[in-house]
Order: sequence, then structure tokens, then C-alpha cells
Amino acid sequence: MFQLKDFEKCVFELSKLPGIGRKTATRLALFLLKMDKKDVLALTKSIEALKDKIRFCKICGSLTDEEICSICKDATRDKTTICVVEEAKDVILIENSGNYNGLYHVLGGRISPLDGITPDVLSFDKLISRIEEGNIKEIIIATNPDVDGETTAYYLKKILSDYSMLKITRIATGLAVGSHLEYSDEFAILKALENRREI
Amino acid sequence: MFQLKDFEKCVFELSKLPGIGRKTATRLALFLLKMDKKDVLALTKSIEALKDKIRFCKICGSLTDEEICSICKDATRDKTTICVVEEAKDVILIENSGNYNGLYHVLGGRISPLDGITPDVLSFDKLISRIEEGNIKEIIIATNPDVDGETTAYYLKKILSDYSMLKITRIATGLAVGSHLEYSDEFAILKALENRREI
Repeated sequence: MFQLKDFEKCVFELSKLPGIGRKTATRLALFLLKMDKKDVLALTKSIEALKDKIRFCKICGSLTDEEICSICKDATRDKTTICVVEEAKDVILIENSGNYNGLYHVLGGRISPLDGITPDVLSFDKLISRIEEGNIKEIIIATNPDVDGETTAYYLKKILSDYSMLKITRIATGLAVGSHLEYSDEFAILKALENRREI
Repeated sequence: MFQLKDFEKCVFELSKLPGIGRKTATRLALFLLKMDKKDVLALTKSIEALKDKIRFCKICGSLTDEEICSICKDATRDKTTICVVEEAKDVILIENSGNYNGLYHVLGGRISPLDGITPDVLSFDKLISRIEEGNIKEIIIATNPDVDGETTAYYLKKILSDYSMLKITRIATGLAVGSHLEYSDEFAILKALENRREI
């Protein structure tokens, strides 16, 4: 068996990353070996800087390099609307779509009892405090439209039903925009029929 | 557009790696953010150690943490046989197959004029010097059995034809061991018929 301590260690560490198995990790390690030393250092330093400087916003849980994120601090944004998402990356996706001007709330995951993720490990309490403290008028539930995401949306709707002044909405789901019936699965078509709207 | 300097920088550096696009890089960066700091440091330090300590053997071009690799230094190995491969990772693969006891020579790629890889950027000269200096009896050509690999093998056979004392062999190709005719492409079946042998 061919073994080189530093090489094996690097392959082992790389293969801890999601979607990277032993073979891909070996390929990456060989690529790193062929890269310029300064490019490799740029990579490792950028990972360390990411870990040192980027954290989660104290209010909404999205990514920031300060205590409070730029969205929560922005005075021009609509402070009466909160869009609830599963993960911090969803905030980036919605921001890049370009037309949403409200606030966010990152749950930190979605309810999935089989994986041990029950409502108490997600940040529902913090969302309730934000609703009680602020002048919130609308909650947009933007969890993913799959089984766990729908469960989370349903749970959220239930705990928010006490707040009668709140308008609770769910992002539109159905056939993917730009797709064809032919390439959609039965469940998507079923849901698209169920959620049909007058035009 | 959502922007965080350190986050974007890390995504940019990660997406330079092979097979990692912007989306995968973003997913990796978010995963790194959620990892323990000590695990992240273990990763970056292992990459730096790889870059600092692992280099290419002065004789054969395979990976080593010393000047000369453990295979070239090993007195028990058969010094009369050289297995020629494209990349250092191929040495690892052949070593792990468990039964080869000769030396190696890493070309550092394969002839591919369209990508600008002509014979002079590969280590053919070094192989010739090794043959002229040492007591080599057999050269096993183990480049990959695809178009560029076969071209490289053919070129190698041509430049070695001056050395009449050399036995030049090519690794066996045909249908993949363990595969079915049904799942093999026409070219593989054609080659398997061409290279048939008496049993």
C-alpha cells in the first residue's frame, strides 16, 4: 500500500467535506500539489479568514462580518415583513433574485424528526420574540417545497396562528418556471393542479 | 447583490479547484462556516503541509517527502523494469493493486497537441537517460487506453525502437474486468476482438 503521511492526511481532511469522497479528495490533493504555492496559500488563508470573520447575524441569523448584518441595519428596508428561510444560503439566493426588500429570519434547518431535528433546535423562539417586539405585518414562509420544508411551513403557520394581526404567506410552488410538463414528476403536477389560480 | 468580501473571496478560491463550480464552492464555504474551528484549521494546515513537504521524486517523478522516493530507494525492487505512467496518481493506483515490483517513470501528462502538450514538455528525455544509464530490460507502457494515451504509447514505442535490448510491453486492454458486453461501447468490443488471445 502506497503511503505518504502528509498526502494521506490532506486527502483525509478534504474527504470530510460534503460531496467529496476519497477519489475526489485524491484528485484535489494532486491538483493542489501542482498549483503555485501562492495560489494554495491564497486558498488556505481565504478559508481561515472566512472562519475568523464571517459569523451569523445576532438578529436574523444570516451571514455577516459584523455583529448585525447589513440587511437588518439597512434603514431603507421594509421592517414590517420577514421572510423565513431554512439556511443562510437561502438569504443569498433570495437577495440575488433582486426584488425583495424586507427582512429575513434563518431557522438554521428544517424539522426532520428522523434526523433528530425537532422544532426546539431551530430558531422559532427568536422569530416569536421578533414578532412580539417589532411591528411585523407579514411573514413569508420560504422553506423548500419538499416534505420536510412543507412540514416546517405547516408547523410555523400553526404557532403563528395566535398572532391574528399577521398576514402569513407561502412562496408559490408548482411546476418550475421555464420547465415542461413532460419533464416534471407526478407530485409536482398534482401540486400545480391543486394550487391553480384564476387568470 | 449580496456581498461579503471574505465569503466571496473564499468561494472564488474554492471554485478554482477542478470539478468545483460556483454553486459547489458556495455550499463548501457554508459547510466550512458551520464546522468546528479546529477542524477547519486541521484542513488548511494539512493543505499547507502537503504543499511544503510532498514533492516529485528526482528520478521517477512520483510523489515523495524526500529527494528520492521510497520506490526508487528500495533495494528489493526489480531495477530492470520501468512502468511508464502519465501522472503521479497512477503510481499510487498501480502500487495499491499490489503485485508490481519494478520501478516507475511519470511522464507528467500525455501527448495532446490540441491542448498544447507536445512531447518536449513531457519527461521522455529523462526516461531515455535512465535507460542509457541503467540496466533496464523491460519498459511497460501504462498510459491510459484512450486516444491521447494510445498516441503517447505509440510515440514512446517509436522513440524506444533504437534500443534493441529492450522488451517493450503495453498493459492489457479490452473489456473492463468484471463488465458485461451489454454495457460496453462498440470501440471497447472492437478492441477486445482485435486483441483476442489463445486460451
